[in-house]
Amino acid sequence: MPNVHCKRIRGALSPVLTPFNADLSPSVPRFVEHCRALLAQDVGLAIFGTNSEATSMTVKEKRGLLDALLAEDVPAARLMPGVGACAAPDVIEMTQHAVGAGCAGVLMLPPFYYKGVSEEGLFRAFANIIDTVNDDRLRIYLYHIPPVTQVGISLQLIERLLRSFPTIVAGIKDSSGDWDNTAAMLRHFRGADFDVFAGSETILLDTMRNGGAGVISATANVNPAAISRLCAQWNHPDADAKQIALNEVRAAFAQFPLIAAMKTAMASGLDDPSWTTMRPPLIELNTSQHEALVRQLEQLDFHLYANQAEGNTTH
Amino acid sequence: MPNVHCKRIRGALSPVLTPFNADLSPSVPRFVEHCRALLAQDVGLAIFGTNSEATSMTVKEKRGLLDALLAEDVPAARLMPGVGACAAPDVIEMTQHAVGAGCAGVLMLPPFYYKGVSEEGLFRAFANIIDTVNDDRLRIYLYHIPPVTQVGISLQLIERLLRSFPTIVAGIKDSSGDWDNTAAMLRHFRGADFDVFAGSETILLDTMRNGGAGVISATANVNPAAISRLCAQWNHPDADAKQIALNEVRAAFAQFPLIAAMKTAMASGLDDPSWTTMRPPLIELNTSQHEALVRQLEQLDFHLYANQAEGNTTH
Repeated sequence: MPNVHCKRIRGALSPVLTPFNADLSPSVPRFVEHCRALLAQDVGLAIFGTNSEATSMTVKEKRGLLDALLAEDVPAARLMPGVGACAAPDVIEMTQHAVGAGCAGVLMLPPFYYKGVSEEGLFRAFANIIDTVNDDRLRIYLYHIPPVTQVGISLQLIERLLRSFPTIVAGIKDSSGDWDNTAAMLRHFRGADFDVFAGSETILLDTMRNGGAGVISATANVNPAAISRLCAQWNHPDADAKQIALNEVRAAFAQFPLIAAMKTAMASGLDDPSWTTMRPPLIELNTSQHEALVRQLEQLDFHLYANQAEGNTTH
Repeated sequence: MPNVHCKRIRGALSPVLTPFNADLSPSVPRFVEHCRALLAQDVGLAIFGTNSEATSMTVKEKRGLLDALLAEDVPAARLMPGVGACAAPDVIEMTQHAVGAGCAGVLMLPPFYYKGVSEEGLFRAFANIIDTVNDDRLRIYLYHIPPVTQVGISLQLIERLLRSFPTIVAGIKDSSGDWDNTAAMLRHFRGADFDVFAGSETILLDTMRNGGAGVISATANVNPAAISRLCAQWNHPDADAKQIALNEVRAAFAQFPLIAAMKTAMASGLDDPSWTTMRPPLIELNTSQHEALVRQLEQLDFHLYANQAEGNTTH
């Protein structure tokens, strides 16, 4: 049976953390290095997500980072750049650039400034972008993250978009934090050409066992080996034990503001304090948070990128 | 006694509605015409506010509209452009452009993508922009609109900003919709060099009687004459009666999505249906809403720009 998804990006992806210099400009060399490390663990690159501080960057800055990856021969087929913004022309510019570069797809937030907007208004927002980009190569992954945007993407809106733009509207990242919602999406679009990605590895097995396409998770920045391994081996007999191990690492990070905590782990793991820098309004962990996190990660025998405890079969 | 506010913009301002063409590009001629009509009623121009659909426009589009006004000899001293965006470099570019043009001030949203951010993070966000723009002519009016941004500006944050950047941080627009909050700001900063603007004309008298600087209100787009008159004559004996009349007009518009309702009134008053066009995710009123609004405005003897019922002393 032919796999209709054969050309689509699937599996584990990371919303790639963006390293900043002391003057708050993006650090291209550290960004490229981090992307290479993730690819080496078979983790795809959802650059410019929420965890990338993407909305804190301009279109020009994001285009520059994407171009830097391509110039370093990072395969576009492993890239799913975030393109979301409040202003449609900014979304269109970023999307055209990503499609032109051959990226596997784009991750698209709904416009998120106005609250309580209508389904008709959101449909028009996506339709306007799709019609303007007007490129058959476009693959849009909707980005549902109502805890941040306060503007969600309903099943009805997805249905309407799929009817109008089949193949273009290719899937969704569900960062609702609500398994019931992910489960409803998986049920509702089973058999449709629509890929549901879990927004956190805490529901990785549940998602894969119910026909999901993979996971796009923050902590895949710091724990990529274990996450991508379980995503590929979700039907192995030891999968539940591995899910528990993933959850322990996630829980250690989730005690703190997540992006700051991951940047702390990057700084610690790479022995590079500059990794903790964030663009306001986000701020780095304070000293006691930093020390508490590092202590807990040591207790979990956590190592950046590869979790050696998991890889060691004597455990 | 010298008035420390003598050079500051005060009184009634309008977050200027942005007219769009059928292809969703901004209509420069209709924008200039609308701005002139507001100035003729002594209403200042808070272009690029929430009611302007400003976050739905790019920095380039906003710069173009500002330049168009200046090219038409609209006085920069009557302009308070909104400059808020999620990405600091976008805020900085827009702010530098406004300051360079001699605008009276800028209206600045906090970064609004991330929720639950710290006061320290918000302070750093504003401080980074102020330090980078680095221009003594800069006058920032903070834009507190938590119903939309979900990210508010606390009294403590204002205090800290005033300590670090006196004269630069010049005031606030309080669109919390909560009179208690506006009252607290007026009390807290009485005697400080900090101008509090009501975010709606429904609290115009309360604000002016407690030392406020004026009002920046959506409906000043469509009812500018009456609003600016009461703002100037708030200590006249008939002020309370005039406040009631303002409230009636406001209530008629507020039954519907406000921006769409005001654009309907523009289309109706100017006999120009193209005024109803909005950028997604916002949408125009449906036919029954449109008809209901027009009917109610007729009952109130409302006329675009000038409320003739109020102007007629026989009433």
